Amino acid sequence: MDIPTLADMLIAHERIKPHIHRTPVLTSDYLDGLSGAHLLFKCENFQKAGAFKVRGASNAVFGLSDAEAARGVATHSSGNHALSLSYAAGRRGVPCHVVMPRTAPQAKKDAVRGYGGIITECAPSTTSREEVFARVQQETGANFVHPYNDARVIAGQGTCSKELIEQTARLDAVIAPIGGGGMISGTCLTLSALAPHVEIYAAEPEAADDAARSLRAGHIIADDAPQTVADGLKVPLKDLTWHFVSRHVRDILTATEQEIIDAMRLTWQRMKIVIEPSCAVPLAVILKNRALFAGKRVGVIITGGNVDLDRLPWIK
Amino acid sequence: MDIPTLADMLIAHERIKPHIHRTPVLTSDYLDGLSGAHLLFKCENFQKAGAFKVRGASNAVFGLSDAEAARGVATHSSGNHALSLSYAAGRRGVPCHVVMPRTAPQAKKDAVRGYGGIITECAPSTTSREEVFARVQQETGANFVHPYNDARVIAGQGTCSKELIEQTARLDAVIAPIGGGGMISGTCLTLSALAPHVEIYAAEPEAADDAARSLRAGHIIADDAPQTVADGLKVPLKDLTWHFVSRHVRDILTATEQEIIDAMRLTWQRMKIVIEPSCAVPLAVILKNRALFAGKRVGVIITGGNVDLDRLPWIK
Repeated sequence: MDIPTLADMLIAHERIKPHIHRTPVLTSDYLDGLSGAHLLFKCENFQKAGAFKVRGASNAVFGLSDAEAARGVATHSSGNHALSLSYAAGRRGVPCHVVMPRTAPQAKKDAVRGYGGIITECAPSTTSREEVFARVQQETGANFVHPYNDARVIAGQGTCSKELIEQTARLDAVIAPIGGGGMISGTCLTLSALAPHVEIYAAEPEAADDAARSLRAGHIIADDAPQTVADGLKVPLKDLTWHFVSRHVRDILTATEQEIIDAMRLTWQRMKIVIEPSCAVPLAVILKNRALFAGKRVGVIITGGNVDLDRLPWIK
Repeated sequence: MDIPTLADMLIAHERIKPHIHRTPVLTSDYLDGLSGAHLLFKCENFQKAGAFKVRGASNAVFGLSDAEAARGVATHSSGNHALSLSYAAGRRGVPCHVVMPRTAPQAKKDAVRGYGGIITECAPSTTSREEVFARVQQETGANFVHPYNDARVIAGQGTCSKELIEQTARLDAVIAPIGGGGMISGTCLTLSALAPHVEIYAAEPEAADDAARSLRAGHIIADDAPQTVADGLKVPLKDLTWHFVSRHVRDILTATEQEIIDAMRLTWQRMKIVIEPSCAVPLAVILKNRALFAGKRVGVIITGGNVDLDRLPWIK
């Protein structure tokens, strides 16, 4: 296992700075009143390509040698990582291959192509995806950039909480959503070294609570295709992210589907920002665990804003 | 006519600073590419009470003597001005009376009450509204704060473009939506004195283009209850706002309902911010008048973010 270090994160930040936004930190008197905490929202929904994932993807792409980069990068994802990797590859002028099930929504295919990604379709099964991906990699020699279980990606995601602590006075806690654990692992990497007094919490849908159960069990538990409105959080932990989560995360708190939808709508309504369902999970768990956060200064990582505006979860 | 001066605007800014946000200016590479201009969005959707109206309302409320203030303030509006005046009165600890038709949406009544406003209902006619309003004013002695045709309100709205020019390097043009003309008048007041080289444009729905027709005709034309998705822009110019519009606005450009909805959706999708339909009119006219704005640095005033999230105009 190639565990990323603080030095890797610091190098990543210098490397990716020209390609990312230093996103703002917003606050809301109303949500402070509701939670009893002082919430500092790090708005990665304003990030390039609409999500924090561009940090890790850019670090991977711009860390390649010229010879490696020329063969391009590849991934299998239909979400924000595919957009971000396509964006970063485009900035370097090298190809990005994305293997996606042919059943993926047209909007997602269009979005990846909009950022210059080259899609190779597979059947909607893990077997087909792996076969097609192996073929693409063999034919192109592209460098595989995993969405989260990759030291370069975790080091890149760690730059988000580095900015957060630079932008805010003393924090007592930081909370971020957890799916595969890339953002949380980067957060652990950075804060355990630079601000070890800050408590790190993760927030997860109750309907896809494999990370919470993993933390309790002391080993990775992976669920098969859980269903949740927080569609960025369905994937399981892997060895690298488990390394960080198991060592540094104080607790993983869960919220129901309705609590997530309510917190998402509340954020849109009160903060006037477009956030994904996944980003609403931290606010949902803060509001339902008032005693845990009240009186604290809490950094909340808003992970992305790529939402299908034609299908909002509170409109039936 | 009590025409507000530059000094009034400068005093207003010092007066209201403790009660408002200095809202951020956001940019979008994507929308710059689409328009050919460099667009600087002044985000009053992040303002207290969700709209720029709190600037003028706060200036009116905090400019009253203690004796005047004790009798409260009053207005007839069911929109952002009512929210803002309620907010400002609440900050000063004095009552705010709002006359609203009993047929107004429950959500609007709840929002006004949420900010501490005291609602008196009237029948849904101008006659009833005027009768009820006169009675409320007589009984309470409250100070009437008109939503836009009020020197204190215009001086307050002018603080927005003062901040905008402080926050940005050289601007070539500024554009804002026009309804009754309060924001545009404040913009004219400020820029004609502090940055007279900046071209001032107004943007209006084609379906409620009374201000554009007024400018061409050389006198105020008022339409009777025009219908548009940009529901903040239905009201007509009045003498004070006409004073500024007729002297300082270079042109009033219009957009169709569909162009407004498309620009609103595009802003949500690309900038990840929640804006009202009214705020999308400027972007709509910039995109359809490319030659006029291309190559220029254009300040775009995003006036508010109070949207009914259950009824979005692009979802049928």
